[in-house]
Amino acid sequence: MYSYEKLLKFTEQIFIKMGCPAAQAKSGAEVLLSADLRGVDSHGVARLSGYVRLWESKRINATPKVRIVHETPSTAVVDGDSGLGLVVAPIAMKIAIEKAKNVGTGWVSVKGSNHYGIAGYHAMMALEHDMIGISMTNASPLVAPTFSLDRMLGTNPIAVAIPADKQPAFVADFATTTAANGKLEILQRKGTDAPMGWIQDKNGSQTPNPHELKNGGALLPLGGDRDHGSHKGYCLGSIVDIFSAVLSGANYGPWVPPFVSFLPMPANPVGEGIGHFFGAMRIDAFRPAEEFKLHIDNWISTFRNANAIEGEKVQIPGDYERNESIKRINEGIFLLPPVENDLKELSEKFNIIF
Amino acid sequence: MYSYEKLLKFTEQIFIKMGCPAAQAKSGAEVLLSADLRGVDSHGVARLSGYVRLWESKRINATPKVRIVHETPSTAVVDGDSGLGLVVAPIAMKIAIEKAKNVGTGWVSVKGSNHYGIAGYHAMMALEHDMIGISMTNASPLVAPTFSLDRMLGTNPIAVAIPADKQPAFVADFATTTAANGKLEILQRKGTDAPMGWIQDKNGSQTPNPHELKNGGALLPLGGDRDHGSHKGYCLGSIVDIFSAVLSGANYGPWVPPFVSFLPMPANPVGEGIGHFFGAMRIDAFRPAEEFKLHIDNWISTFRNANAIEGEKVQIPGDYERNESIKRINEGIFLLPPVENDLKELSEKFNIIF
Repeated sequence: MYSYEKLLKFTEQIFIKMGCPAAQAKSGAEVLLSADLRGVDSHGVARLSGYVRLWESKRINATPKVRIVHETPSTAVVDGDSGLGLVVAPIAMKIAIEKAKNVGTGWVSVKGSNHYGIAGYHAMMALEHDMIGISMTNASPLVAPTFSLDRMLGTNPIAVAIPADKQPAFVADFATTTAANGKLEILQRKGTDAPMGWIQDKNGSQTPNPHELKNGGALLPLGGDRDHGSHKGYCLGSIVDIFSAVLSGANYGPWVPPFVSFLPMPANPVGEGIGHFFGAMRIDAFRPAEEFKLHIDNWISTFRNANAIEGEKVQIPGDYERNESIKRINEGIFLLPPVENDLKELSEKFNIIF
Repeated sequence: MYSYEKLLKFTEQIFIKMGCPAAQAKSGAEVLLSADLRGVDSHGVARLSGYVRLWESKRINATPKVRIVHETPSTAVVDGDSGLGLVVAPIAMKIAIEKAKNVGTGWVSVKGSNHYGIAGYHAMMALEHDMIGISMTNASPLVAPTFSLDRMLGTNPIAVAIPADKQPAFVADFATTTAANGKLEILQRKGTDAPMGWIQDKNGSQTPNPHELKNGGALLPLGGDRDHGSHKGYCLGSIVDIFSAVLSGANYGPWVPPFVSFLPMPANPVGEGIGHFFGAMRIDAFRPAEEFKLHIDNWISTFRNANAIEGEKVQIPGDYERNESIKRINEGIFLLPPVENDLKELSEKFNIIF
């Protein structure tokens, strides 16, 4: 078990060694660690060596000049200048929040970025301002649209955070595939089968073998197959791709520069880096915030108290992650041996105590 | 087979007999018929007698004063004054478009409305303005969140329309459940089984029997079960519910006044009518519209040309509906005998030639 503070400090020091300015190293580390806190083990320090690998291959600029390249009162396009997505994303989300203060809502599409950690972190930045926060990003092309043999989309997550009054906030944060790639990576490590409906092999047949993804197979859009609505998951992933990358001028679809090491860089880029999309909506641009939040409390308690299947309960989006956070702050964060080894290697490479 | 013009005119006359002003009757009929054109048979004239039933029970006001009750430069809340959703929705979407002209984007949440036909119609209104259109609505509580026995949400659809240059527009329009209720109604009429993953019975077990919905069962969120991501479909349906109804002050969750006749009106309403949410984003609030549309053309042709499973092809959201529209304008619209009978009864009731 490792304490949150220890892993946070270690990550911050790695980013400083990469050349990040101190404030950005701190902010980026906080974003990365929010995944380890919230129980999204695949997106936290387990990926730290992946970020270092991208930096070593000159795909990450440690001192980016993040700037607005076009704007209107409610919108902006932000150029991340190849910075860490972990650093670029909060800057872009802050711009969305400032615009919402002025004209009710703010919407920011980002190009020239890299992977930004968990979508939920950025959406949740809106909560303290009594705003709804929205965050999405495109990602490594690993997903086959309905009936496709080719991998055309990322797991393209969507996060929406909605403030409540006495209840904890509603925080949805989910990949638009049946299962996130992180879940598959865990099965690959354990050598266990995946449920049918998560992946297809290179011939487009569903398979339980998690290794087929690296063998020309693909992740499947939410829904799994046509009969169960995979065309809807495909729609969602496409919308995330277009809002994040075609609105901003980033790479889209199969051109998204991959984070995973087993995919090559696509030739003939159609834009710059990967893309994100952020939104902030001021509650009182619609109705008084207190009134809204009391109704959200009622919404949450009504859903939480719905009659449930025996042995189960109806959860509210964000419940699991919030409970994990509390537990992990108190009890520490467990790392799998391969992740520990990764961090030890980074410790030696950068001469930082782990 | 019936011609589009004939069904349009018939519907318009019914709305006039209900007391709708001529322009609203025309606009509402066009929205309703767009479902019959686009192949969404469940949402077109098949529902005309349902709208009449709501009007007879005083739930629809034929002469609503649709008005903005609160606004900022990029947002508005619209009170539909219990009007036909078919009439209220285009008025609200126009407000979103006007706001986008001024400040880049426009976002409108609606209360006091009724069912608004297909979500896609309203989203597509943005296309001719070189804007992205977004449309969603809550609906009759028929859906059980993951692990719930109770029906807490509607099939809560989302539509997103994105303009292209030479390619036809990208138009996604889908229920946030495995299958829309209209598909189930078709199986109920035919007496055939549904795929597992569409519905659960009153004990929360998946069942192929489409009649279990009326027997205390429920539709399932997109994903079907927890292993296949039903919690993500539940998140999506919840977000639609909150944006449409809690932002505006409409009824939400299990309090949504049902369209289906087998559900009673919920007691102790928490708001007014049902809710919708509309968005319009001006493309050139992000980047030049021509540049964007050329990239969308490239996106569309790249996805359309992906290698496909034998005997299938990769479709673009909106392809099916557009092809149906062309066919049905040319060849006419087929109505099932129960729908024909419904329309004949309306013809007699209102003394209008069918």
